[in-house]
Amino acid sequence: MDGPLVKKYFLKLAPPSMEDSAADLERVIRSLSEVCPGEFDVPLSVASKIPDVLRQSGFELTVTVSFSDTRSIIDAEPGDTSGRCFGLAIDLGTTNVVGVLLDLAEGRQLGELSDVNPQIAHGEDILNRIHFCLKKGNLEELQRQAAGCINSIARRLSDAAGIGVHEIGCVSVSGNTTMAHLFLGLDPYNICRAPYVPVANHFGFFRAADLGLDINPEGAAYVLPNVGSYVGGDVLAGVLVSGMHERSEVSLMVDVGTNAEIVIGNRDWLLVCAGAAGPALEGGVVKFGMRAMPGAIERIKINPETMRSEYSVIGGQGVKPRGMCGSALIDLLAELFLKGLIDGRGKFVEPFLPGVRENDGLREYVVAPAADAEAGEDIVFTEADIDNLVRTKAAMYTALNVVTRELGMSFHDLAEFSIAGTFGAYIAADKAVAIGMVPDIELSKYSLLGNSSLKGACKTLLSREAINEVERIASMITYKELNVSTDFMSEFRAAMFLPHTDASLFPNIV
Amino acid sequence: MDGPLVKKYFLKLAPPSMEDSAADLERVIRSLSEVCPGEFDVPLSVASKIPDVLRQSGFELTVTVSFSDTRSIIDAEPGDTSGRCFGLAIDLGTTNVVGVLLDLAEGRQLGELSDVNPQIAHGEDILNRIHFCLKKGNLEELQRQAAGCINSIARRLSDAAGIGVHEIGCVSVSGNTTMAHLFLGLDPYNICRAPYVPVANHFGFFRAADLGLDINPEGAAYVLPNVGSYVGGDVLAGVLVSGMHERSEVSLMVDVGTNAEIVIGNRDWLLVCAGAAGPALEGGVVKFGMRAMPGAIERIKINPETMRSEYSVIGGQGVKPRGMCGSALIDLLAELFLKGLIDGRGKFVEPFLPGVRENDGLREYVVAPAADAEAGEDIVFTEADIDNLVRTKAAMYTALNVVTRELGMSFHDLAEFSIAGTFGAYIAADKAVAIGMVPDIELSKYSLLGNSSLKGACKTLLSREAINEVERIASMITYKELNVSTDFMSEFRAAMFLPHTDASLFPNIV
Repeated sequence: MDGPLVKKYFLKLAPPSMEDSAADLERVIRSLSEVCPGEFDVPLSVASKIPDVLRQSGFELTVTVSFSDTRSIIDAEPGDTSGRCFGLAIDLGTTNVVGVLLDLAEGRQLGELSDVNPQIAHGEDILNRIHFCLKKGNLEELQRQAAGCINSIARRLSDAAGIGVHEIGCVSVSGNTTMAHLFLGLDPYNICRAPYVPVANHFGFFRAADLGLDINPEGAAYVLPNVGSYVGGDVLAGVLVSGMHERSEVSLMVDVGTNAEIVIGNRDWLLVCAGAAGPALEGGVVKFGMRAMPGAIERIKINPETMRSEYSVIGGQGVKPRGMCGSALIDLLAELFLKGLIDGRGKFVEPFLPGVRENDGLREYVVAPAADAEAGEDIVFTEADIDNLVRTKAAMYTALNVVTRELGMSFHDLAEFSIAGTFGAYIAADKAVAIGMVPDIELSKYSLLGNSSLKGACKTLLSREAINEVERIASMITYKELNVSTDFMSEFRAAMFLPHTDASLFPNIV
Repeated sequence: MDGPLVKKYFLKLAPPSMEDSAADLERVIRSLSEVCPGEFDVPLSVASKIPDVLRQSGFELTVTVSFSDTRSIIDAEPGDTSGRCFGLAIDLGTTNVVGVLLDLAEGRQLGELSDVNPQIAHGEDILNRIHFCLKKGNLEELQRQAAGCINSIARRLSDAAGIGVHEIGCVSVSGNTTMAHLFLGLDPYNICRAPYVPVANHFGFFRAADLGLDINPEGAAYVLPNVGSYVGGDVLAGVLVSGMHERSEVSLMVDVGTNAEIVIGNRDWLLVCAGAAGPALEGGVVKFGMRAMPGAIERIKINPETMRSEYSVIGGQGVKPRGMCGSALIDLLAELFLKGLIDGRGKFVEPFLPGVRENDGLREYVVAPAADAEAGEDIVFTEADIDNLVRTKAAMYTALNVVTRELGMSFHDLAEFSIAGTFGAYIAADKAVAIGMVPDIELSKYSLLGNSSLKGACKTLLSREAINEVERIASMITYKELNVSTDFMSEFRAAMFLPHTDASLFPNIV
């Protein structure tokens, strides 16, 4: 029977007598076994408080059981606290750390919070942080920073929900391979050096206190496994959430971040490959690109009459835009193309339609005028931006195509096409199809997973079975190097057109 | 296949390549699984050193595996160190702590050392120490003292054997219920209060560092289980060593210390009861009684011509005696009776034979004259001493008789009669029979176990199967209160005669 990773049991014991002088701990386990059969570990810190707990409460107590590799009694409290059982799911991203506080007894979400990964002070990207670890003591510092960030999120979520942070009995952490290593204090040195071997792929369970996590010190900390250096627990979480590993039909999932990891397969086999694909969607490459956070335009339409943009901003009405996140960029590129402001090569059509202008010799579309923008300057989308975005979408489409074709399949054979990634929840599948980033298949086959790293972490807390599943996914998945052959390059060039040089591939668009 | 609790494996790995880019840890486990199948836990401290160990040694390394509840890799070292695998067995006595350093690869003993239990500063006996724990912080102090004493023994034994103390991969600790609780920091409060419940009976395995043990920090620390407040791991170790739990015939074991625990049974059932029986044998009750240590007379004969005593002293020739240990007291009482110096009531026969005298109105036998004794005063054995010893032997015989009879058996039905206890190795069974302490059965059925607490601890390190056995013994054994009925009292009185008022019970003596 499936259930959460940590569960509480309220027990009413018969007090000891000369006829029944079982030891305190055995008395508790005897009673617990009636409702939860099995063998139980009891850490000393819990064993040592049991005599007092029993005698404080007339031998009625609540025990917290963690179902990690072994069953452990990780807490004992007087009276009935069985309704108070909490877990913390963490998406440990390179840039952002997002946490969700879960009520495990009720199976519902109590709050969500995002914070900047403090490791960023020692390197914006993974390579910089790996380099930082060359100096003795620095790996330990990054470990403490990761734990500290999770602790801060845990504390704020607990405060907001009116619970004690020590009532959190388990944490599940999903991140890429390097983030998992840094969080566990494992040297990432060989992750970025041929032949690219991590220290470990399967991490499993840890005692929360051993990782510096300030929840129940005996609580279970689970870290999702990875598959080599390129495919992290965040991707496996995506597979878990997509459910593709359970279906008999073949599905595909693409997780778009700095890289685009593509997973294809079914319940019998899973293949994963990774390609540099997504940077233009993540901010920093496109002039006004930014992450999905308050102030980011997330949705754009172009008014067919005025050719002016209509947009919505994360944070709600009254929040002035600062830039555009990935979903807005895809919307915008699609709209510019579909409304005829740009041609298939991504160039502004002359004569310029309203909103398009030339500025200092560079052509651009004005998304939001200075008066409406937070920074008091026009938010624009330049031809150079368009070019970057087209490269990104072309790389992704090519990778998708190569992988599918190498398996002797066509996109139409796919039962489901899932898009994961932090902006994946907001992406409009029809727009992604329109620009030729993803194939022109039935829109109903598209499924937007959103932050599937975080959702997967939640799932592993709410369902013990999900942990077995994700470990099984990690064991069965095969990593395939994307063959950057001349074939790939010529296909890539063909894809650098809206939606594609071969229009027959996108019958619903052109 | 049985083997020691901790074992080392030398592994030669293929270095990673683009074709085989398994993670470091998985590479190690893959190779280990070929010689030792199963799943393995790897604590972070070990996982994090594996990348360096592998690359320091051309991917040849030795891993140390602990076979506790789960299989754990508790160390990784470059090169081949498989011959260096050590364990420490501890008899954690109320007064003395004795340790044996074992070479687990060779299955032999490297050294033995005894030390006074430093907890003695906070109470000579168990009740005083339990009382001491009432004050906050004191339990923790006793815990630290126990660990500190074990650490000191570990260090001295390691130094003497020329090994590093961190090369010790496991510790097994055998003691009475209170000593086990104090060592683990578990509150002993209810052990001495009705209905006498310990915090726990089964302790199992701990991480050495969690108990403050300064061996391999990830090493396995095993604590033998107890059965309620009166029957500790030391007694169960005795059963283990006796092998009575494996035989189809019924055997009996008596463990003589401050109490005498009697275990009777076979492979299908085991019964244990405890009676206050042994104090006169332990020193402190008999005027010149002392523990078995250098300076103690351990063996006494009375010359039938001169009626003078001939004795041997622990520590060898040239060591002057300071007193007599339990085995000597039994010898002496038997010899005085058999040589006709005392009668069946334990009174000196008049006229006094040589060696007997009256001193200040008290009658006594001179064991060693002042000139031969360490303290320069006569070592004597008084009529009061004899009386105490007769009470002790009578209590033990009565307890043995009551238990055996209540099971509908006679002593002659016993396949084996084992005597355990620190002085048990030196006791002469024929002398114990002569004074009527133990029954008059075939002498070949007697088996002297010596310090079976320590021997049992050794066994649990050398044989993983022995740990299952002792846990099984603890689970199957039933504690039986010795019924101090009028029956018992009248039998006790009848036994207060040498060898017994009913001479027919001792046909070979009288």
